[in-house]
Amino acid sequence: MRALFFDGELKLVNDYPEPMRMAGESIVAVSLAGICGTDREIMRGYMGYRGVPGHEFAGRVTHSDDASLIGARVAGEINAGCGDCAACHARMQRHCRRRTVLGILGRDGAFAERLLLPDANLHRIPDTVSDEAAVMVEPIAAAGEILDQVELPTGGGVVILGDGRLAAIVAMVLSGAGYAVAVAGRHRGKLARIAALDRAHGRIAAYLDGAGERRTVRYRVVIDCTGNAAGFTRALELVEPRGTIVLKSTAAAGAALNLAPVVINEITVVGSRCGRFAPAIEWLAAGRFDPRPLIDGVYPLDESRAAFAAAAEPEKFKILLRPA
Amino acid sequence: MRALFFDGELKLVNDYPEPMRMAGESIVAVSLAGICGTDREIMRGYMGYRGVPGHEFAGRVTHSDDASLIGARVAGEINAGCGDCAACHARMQRHCRRRTVLGILGRDGAFAERLLLPDANLHRIPDTVSDEAAVMVEPIAAAGEILDQVELPTGGGVVILGDGRLAAIVAMVLSGAGYAVAVAGRHRGKLARIAALDRAHGRIAAYLDGAGERRTVRYRVVIDCTGNAAGFTRALELVEPRGTIVLKSTAAAGAALNLAPVVINEITVVGSRCGRFAPAIEWLAAGRFDPRPLIDGVYPLDESRAAFAAAAEPEKFKILLRPA
Repeated sequence: MRALFFDGELKLVNDYPEPMRMAGESIVAVSLAGICGTDREIMRGYMGYRGVPGHEFAGRVTHSDDASLIGARVAGEINAGCGDCAACHARMQRHCRRRTVLGILGRDGAFAERLLLPDANLHRIPDTVSDEAAVMVEPIAAAGEILDQVELPTGGGVVILGDGRLAAIVAMVLSGAGYAVAVAGRHRGKLARIAALDRAHGRIAAYLDGAGERRTVRYRVVIDCTGNAAGFTRALELVEPRGTIVLKSTAAAGAALNLAPVVINEITVVGSRCGRFAPAIEWLAAGRFDPRPLIDGVYPLDESRAAFAAAAEPEKFKILLRPA
Repeated sequence: MRALFFDGELKLVNDYPEPMRMAGESIVAVSLAGICGTDREIMRGYMGYRGVPGHEFAGRVTHSDDASLIGARVAGEINAGCGDCAACHARMQRHCRRRTVLGILGRDGAFAERLLLPDANLHRIPDTVSDEAAVMVEPIAAAGEILDQVELPTGGGVVILGDGRLAAIVAMVLSGAGYAVAVAGRHRGKLARIAALDRAHGRIAAYLDGAGERRTVRYRVVIDCTGNAAGFTRALELVEPRGTIVLKSTAAAGAALNLAPVVINEITVVGSRCGRFAPAIEWLAAGRFDPRPLIDGVYPLDESRAAFAAAAEPEKFKILLRPA
């Protein structure tokens, strides 16, 4: 099959081995795959990953022990636990220490014609939800994880730092859940597009947050979606005493951080990663929001160089690959 | 009056100006004052403080508008709010942005014959509680703050990193509240003394945690009392996925920290500083624990050099100054 393979550089392989299915696993033909910030970090060496990247996808099951799954349109949870440890028994496969992670850790990912996941990881996509929306179920679920972890204030007091893909999806999900949020970014064009995601209710207020700016407004909850270490420092400036900082992005490199303000101001820092797929799919099916305005391009596998170049452009949101 | 004054170096001043009392403030004659890690950080430039250090004390009120306070034995909360901002109106004087802090920020402290605090900051000490115990109300309250902030697991799953003064007091307070805690430190002698603080119930398990050691035991809650930046890195190694790290100490300098594990393992980091005095005094009055075995020396003001040298010794816990 055709696949993008990364081993220090990314290349298209036309005769990549087909996935070998074991009991309890399904093969999924990938319809669309999303390029995410983590994929770009992987290209810079994050996790030391070697294999097929890609972990956001929509597809159709072609082979499975579960006959009812064959032909089904699906999205898939990316963490596959060992099935045998305390975390897995507690249904925390996401935190199994021997887990594989689709396109990130020990398991080939979605930038290929086909991929392999445990049946239990697959979630059916209703007919009313398009592939273009379904491919974003993973980041929508990751944004929804914030709602599971933190009690957000109503009527304001929440700011999202950053104006990239993740920031946009977090703003969309939280405003869709009824929360008024501010978004503080550096790109006027993207900020306007983020605010427009909730034009119906006007719950997203986007503003330019220049370097070195010292706003006196403070927020009860600051959600760092910047993807860089400076975001945490800015979050510390913007958070109220006794407030909460939600860390949504992993920065590849360490940075000189002074945690003293966390202690002095009794800040709670909450690391937040993947989330539950079922509610994310329900929100899409219910039309609570529409992520498709975030799509800035769809590329075939053999134009992956152009696709990644587009994903790196500061004014672009979501770039998709269409492997089939 | 006699006072220790710090302006880059610490010196004894025999004719330091008497505190000037305003309405609503009391003058307290200091019986005993404790040297704390923060004082030693101040000597290294923390907070850029210039003045009389010292914020742990027991004393007796000599002057006050409130006649019932005069002659009372007291301990005192160290944060004095402006009284006029949102934080102060919400009774969060501790987080007032214009606050002064006894011996730390804009307000002379306890290493002097007399100090000044708002009446509202003072707490009466029952006759059954000695000065030697009362001088530790502030760090006992700070340890008790953890109980207000974090729901601790019963039956184990809590580790305290460090074996200094703060670690000892946190272990004493948490075991006194009924929690089984492990203490991981570097000093065999101090670990034995910490374990002995709860000899009656045996709820403190102390162990040597050598550099580079890779224990596979993980804890639901890790409380960092090391006072150095390496403690946070060690805490990340020891905490369970979805667990909590409580940061109890401020490190003066930043350090190269990689927060990616906080996101990947969905860790919650809780900054924890000062706590409520009233329960701390109740615990002492009820004999829930006895902090006096932690006292390793009592020095007059004119032996402050020897006192600070003793406080710097790795095997010493609490060093007190007796200003009167």
